[in-house]
Amino acid sequence: MQNRDWDHVFNFAKELVLDAGEQIRSSFKTKLTIDFKENPSDLVTNMDKQIEKFFIQKINEKYPSDHILGEEGYGEELTSLDGTVWFIDPIDGTMNFVHMQRHFAISVGIYHNGEGIIGIIYDVVADDLYCAVKGSGAFVNGEALAPLKSTEIGEAVLGINAVWGIENKRIDSSITSSLIRAVRGTRSFGSATLELAYIASGKMDGYLSMRLAPWDYAAGKILIEELGGKVSSVNGEPLQLLDKQTPVFAAKPGLHEYILENYIKK
Amino acid sequence: MQNRDWDHVFNFAKELVLDAGEQIRSSFKTKLTIDFKENPSDLVTNMDKQIEKFFIQKINEKYPSDHILGEEGYGEELTSLDGTVWFIDPIDGTMNFVHMQRHFAISVGIYHNGEGIIGIIYDVVADDLYCAVKGSGAFVNGEALAPLKSTEIGEAVLGINAVWGIENKRIDSSITSSLIRAVRGTRSFGSATLELAYIASGKMDGYLSMRLAPWDYAAGKILIEELGGKVSSVNGEPLQLLDKQTPVFAAKPGLHEYILENYIKK
Repeated sequence: MQNRDWDHVFNFAKELVLDAGEQIRSSFKTKLTIDFKENPSDLVTNMDKQIEKFFIQKINEKYPSDHILGEEGYGEELTSLDGTVWFIDPIDGTMNFVHMQRHFAISVGIYHNGEGIIGIIYDVVADDLYCAVKGSGAFVNGEALAPLKSTEIGEAVLGINAVWGIENKRIDSSITSSLIRAVRGTRSFGSATLELAYIASGKMDGYLSMRLAPWDYAAGKILIEELGGKVSSVNGEPLQLLDKQTPVFAAKPGLHEYILENYIKK
Repeated sequence: MQNRDWDHVFNFAKELVLDAGEQIRSSFKTKLTIDFKENPSDLVTNMDKQIEKFFIQKINEKYPSDHILGEEGYGEELTSLDGTVWFIDPIDGTMNFVHMQRHFAISVGIYHNGEGIIGIIYDVVADDLYCAVKGSGAFVNGEALAPLKSTEIGEAVLGINAVWGIENKRIDSSITSSLIRAVRGTRSFGSATLELAYIASGKMDGYLSMRLAPWDYAAGKILIEELGGKVSSVNGEPLQLLDKQTPVFAAKPGLHEYILENYIKK
């Protein structure tokens, strides 16, 4: 890790996330509950934009040399991972935000020269804050998370959306359907970052999506790796944070290798 | 509706559900968090049994003539729906209970001569109480739920587990895969009763499972129908509450007919 006071950066980032969460919760209580019924997509766009702009303004004020890549595009167009880069998803799980007003999360991943340093995922409605600083452990609501251990495939709960089990353009559905049959059960909560937080905290054992952006997985990758789990492309290759869309496969250690060898690469 | 003080029965049932929820939450704080790591299935069985026995004892004391059908089998073997029957699932979403300690619910549906009268679904960890008394509206945490309106299929969120999209013994996967492609998105939260509560409260638009027991859907059916939604077998036929395992298809009005005509019966 580089020579910078990362604890200070972490505390600053955590306060921003909690503040953003409060802004989102307040929006439910006032006009959003009315607005979303009339124009769901606009409402989301407005809140997404408002929260992303809030992050960018605060980070630019405090750390003007840092780079920011955000879902709504108010950050920079990055061509390199040099220096400190913040990957921000103001609301991961947009569909849930609009339809359910729950099961969405704020995701902030901070990398330095391509190395994951700080990961923060905030389940806004459940008020669960998952976070990690590389080398200092991972926590949920201040409680240390246990290192991840392997799970037998027949006892594993896998996060995978039904679209990846049926015929699709991105993965051979004979692979995914075999996997769906092999595990104890599958879930799809509709927020990649939340499902990665669930793996980090032992609530799920694996997660597979064929189409994620770096802001979707940047924080979860740091959390899971801090606890010994694996986050890679669907073929087990390292993820490229500059790719805008990429398949992501995350799992507990042991289970990750097992699924790669016996299902995906078989 | 029959000549009985159903408001009184409702208040009694609601108190039982809240008490049971408190027992489950307390179990997390003390020994369960340790036990489930060593022997997950025993633990679930113990809590399931404890809560079901609690319901049966209290109901038998208060209403000795009522019948009870519960998931754990401490109730009766029913051959008729005559009189008042309580359908109880002490913990719906057992896998979530063990793995996640969230996303499970208590489900209580009360029928009289086969007619649904009272439905109560309690999301224990989120502390959300969904309930309805036939003819008096449906509520979440005391707030009235709006009547359900139809949704275009392309804007609908459908609860369906990935297992029903791939080849399986219970439904032609060409039907389910077409449906999965047609909707805005699919989710699988791993608790049938919770997903039915999500439909009642407008958070999801439809739900399909090929294998439910009556205690899984008894309460949700009452809630959804009270708000104008439809709950039927997968072919649109009325559900038979004496069947131990049955397919269930629930959706907003209009969408229910649309999916039946254009996907399932096509």
